[in-house]
Amino acid sequence: MPGAVPNPLRNTLDRRLPRIAGPSVLVLFGVTGDLARKKLLPAIYDLANRGLLPPGFGLVGFARREWEHEDFAQVAHDAVREHARTPFREDVWRQLSEGVRFVPGELDDDAAFDRLAATVRDLDAQRGTGGNYAFYLSLPPKLFPTVVKQLKRSGLAESTEDGWRRVVIEKPFGHDLESAQELNAVVDEVFPPQSVFRIDHYLGKETVQNTMALRFANTLFEPLWNRSYVDHVQITMAEDIGVGGRAGYYDGIGAARDVIQNHLLQLLALVAMEEPVSFNADAIRAEKEKVLSAVRLPSDLATGTARGQYAAGWQGGAEVVGYLEEDGIPADSDTETYAAVKLEVNTRRWAGVPFYLRTGKRLGRRVTEVALVFQRAPHQVFSQTETEELGQNALVLRIQPNEGVTLRFGSKVPGAAMEVRDVSMDFTYAQSFTESSPEAYERLILDVLIGDPPLFPRQEEVELSWRILDPIEEFWAKQGQPEQYESGGWGPQSAHDLLARDGRQWRRP
Amino acid sequence: MPGAVPNPLRNTLDRRLPRIAGPSVLVLFGVTGDLARKKLLPAIYDLANRGLLPPGFGLVGFARREWEHEDFAQVAHDAVREHARTPFREDVWRQLSEGVRFVPGELDDDAAFDRLAATVRDLDAQRGTGGNYAFYLSLPPKLFPTVVKQLKRSGLAESTEDGWRRVVIEKPFGHDLESAQELNAVVDEVFPPQSVFRIDHYLGKETVQNTMALRFANTLFEPLWNRSYVDHVQITMAEDIGVGGRAGYYDGIGAARDVIQNHLLQLLALVAMEEPVSFNADAIRAEKEKVLSAVRLPSDLATGTARGQYAAGWQGGAEVVGYLEEDGIPADSDTETYAAVKLEVNTRRWAGVPFYLRTGKRLGRRVTEVALVFQRAPHQVFSQTETEELGQNALVLRIQPNEGVTLRFGSKVPGAAMEVRDVSMDFTYAQSFTESSPEAYERLILDVLIGDPPLFPRQEEVELSWRILDPIEEFWAKQGQPEQYESGGWGPQSAHDLLARDGRQWRRP
Repeated sequence: MPGAVPNPLRNTLDRRLPRIAGPSVLVLFGVTGDLARKKLLPAIYDLANRGLLPPGFGLVGFARREWEHEDFAQVAHDAVREHARTPFREDVWRQLSEGVRFVPGELDDDAAFDRLAATVRDLDAQRGTGGNYAFYLSLPPKLFPTVVKQLKRSGLAESTEDGWRRVVIEKPFGHDLESAQELNAVVDEVFPPQSVFRIDHYLGKETVQNTMALRFANTLFEPLWNRSYVDHVQITMAEDIGVGGRAGYYDGIGAARDVIQNHLLQLLALVAMEEPVSFNADAIRAEKEKVLSAVRLPSDLATGTARGQYAAGWQGGAEVVGYLEEDGIPADSDTETYAAVKLEVNTRRWAGVPFYLRTGKRLGRRVTEVALVFQRAPHQVFSQTETEELGQNALVLRIQPNEGVTLRFGSKVPGAAMEVRDVSMDFTYAQSFTESSPEAYERLILDVLIGDPPLFPRQEEVELSWRILDPIEEFWAKQGQPEQYESGGWGPQSAHDLLARDGRQWRRP
Repeated sequence: MPGAVPNPLRNTLDRRLPRIAGPSVLVLFGVTGDLARKKLLPAIYDLANRGLLPPGFGLVGFARREWEHEDFAQVAHDAVREHARTPFREDVWRQLSEGVRFVPGELDDDAAFDRLAATVRDLDAQRGTGGNYAFYLSLPPKLFPTVVKQLKRSGLAESTEDGWRRVVIEKPFGHDLESAQELNAVVDEVFPPQSVFRIDHYLGKETVQNTMALRFANTLFEPLWNRSYVDHVQITMAEDIGVGGRAGYYDGIGAARDVIQNHLLQLLALVAMEEPVSFNADAIRAEKEKVLSAVRLPSDLATGTARGQYAAGWQGGAEVVGYLEEDGIPADSDTETYAAVKLEVNTRRWAGVPFYLRTGKRLGRRVTEVALVFQRAPHQVFSQTETEELGQNALVLRIQPNEGVTLRFGSKVPGAAMEVRDVSMDFTYAQSFTESSPEAYERLILDVLIGDPPLFPRQEEVELSWRILDPIEEFWAKQGQPEQYESGGWGPQSAHDLLARDGRQWRRP
């Protein structure tokens, strides 16, 4: 940039160079789970295939199975063949599988963890993994205390002069503020904050990361990115599927805790935050925390929130049952499968601009997007009839599917009349880059191994998010059964009323 | 628009309703020329085919040919079959051709004009054309005085209580300020200013008209549309062809008079103008005139302008001769076929923002566009290496071909690194509208018949444009031979130096 004085203190890590993990061992708890099979093991292979893992890399599985190393290697192999993003290459697999180990045992078994400790130390000696260990807890949170204590007891948690220790935990980070604090206390006792990597896999998505690039690497967008031009913001994560096999986890949790507390509030933070001083983890997280601490709930939660539960209906040409008829769901469950909430961000930039968040299952279409809907032009030089088909301008960050950016604005309709109608212009990742986008887990596992934390929320963010959600959950708990909505539609009437009261409407994505 | 109070004084003409011409006669001088055959006659048919001409419509040709009405009808028929945009429909043609007449004669022949007067009056009686006459002077300007005087003498120019009279003239509107004023004096003596329609066919193009819709019907663009964000503006009209059959007209005129004085300065005016109070012809033209009167030339014309003449070379796989070897061009001609100029617009909105205008023949590609090139972000949170492939943001109005709008900005490159690279998003007319765009002449002829003048420059605009160009032409006249540039390239070295001195470069469209 002409005229810019390079600041040697900023960006000491050059983020453009290929970032390759150093020697390390990844210890995976919960290897028999869906996440490990569908996402984590394939992501590890994909990283290896892309040359981003070092020769000195070890992968250790731990589970209550009577497996030998070879059995786990076979499980991993099958998972990779089925789910990896990049092509299977025999030589890459062979190199990777030579560092694969398995330790059978119960989580509360001291001997098993001693064997685990011996195994990773053997790897250090046999494979040169350098005494660096990352523990990936792909487990229900209630098991964290046991594992963390065992890691401490067995000496695995203690970082040495030569080697680092990192622990990776997956959401849910508690189910309210109190439980989140308790959970954190357990981890915090053993691992210092900078060694704890909380995975919100949404933050690993390219389009989410691109939000910052769009805003801060460009001139075009930031001047419009404030209350002077933005009428409101809509953040949507819609699923077309029902609760499926997740009934046991989902019931009693619901849409707001499952999605709003983490994914949607993180998206809100990225969209609403001020420009950080640098692209340094602490600088970014400080800005996100400022936004989350400035979020205000609607004064009346009855009109400022909406919740629903999907009823039977048709979806994708198939008849589907309602939530209460799903396997494993109690017939009187009051868990919401749809949640919407209107939030405000009390900052100079955003005061008075509503942020509408919604998420739900069995909606019309699978889509995640952030839409900045702009005010109408302050004065229309064109007459009302000329512009009656003209909506509000919108900038849409398409998180998934068809990742990219859409700009919606008015253009003259060809012809002798001056009629203005909405048109779109699109930027699509798939068309613009030959590089295909890595899976979120590839990015995040690599960041764990490199020790690069900007994309992982700190405990402060987790607690701030619960502070936003807790009063809503408390209010809802007194409301009894959520409103039913038809499967394949766009949620309950109360959600539509929520916007209609403000003279607005949800986008039909 | 919620909250907007409709103002009955504004937009009394509803521009969205189908606008249909009323009963009228179009008298066409120069029917044997290329423009009539390729553009005007087909456009008249296309208007009829779209139902925009009334049953009471007459078309009268006047020329030095021994033709009967039927001969001219046949000429028109052939032109329509060959060049019309819309499909040929026998019934539309029959209806139209019944109102076709021809008057043979010399322009200085009183008797011929008396016959013309009789013919249009017969049409009024036979076809109900209502006594409304438009005279389209598709003729060299030197013939205007003769025709205008004849129209007056024969009584054709005089508007009556029932019928209007309009005169349409084509560029060039003179070759400098003085000749433009003389030309106008001739027309002005017979026709009042509101009856004179000056055709700059570029203003009939959809994308040119859309400039105003984009800017003023939307919220998104106008906040960025000023010196706070725009680094500079580039206005380009590049032709890939040489002088071709226009040698006789072109030599002695050159690129600046042929293109910059009209098309490019009109584009500059539309891009740089303030929002008019209404979409009323006088309101728009007043804003355009304000801009043109605020245009300032570079203090040093030697470094602030560039001119060139194409040399031999290769273009489109064919060897082509240089300008001086073209048929009909004197071997020592100093006419420029490329012209570039740096202008400033001394208004609060644009002070300090250069507008670079360029046009030329035998350039790399046929393209007309307006590009707003934005300043770099004031601070880059990303490091220099992360953004080294990042250009300046740009908004490009693509006038032709592939009409539409392009936005160029930086996006994160997929992958684990934070690398930002330029990407584009496009809006394309052809993809967004099923309606195909009318030809510029369809729009403009319809506007003449309806009496809707926003797209026609007033004499004031013409004079202001010559005031800008005259000092440049005077300076160039003393410089002798223009610099040679290779056919198929992007113009002379001096044009590149013009931007390079400012630390900028021409876009490669």
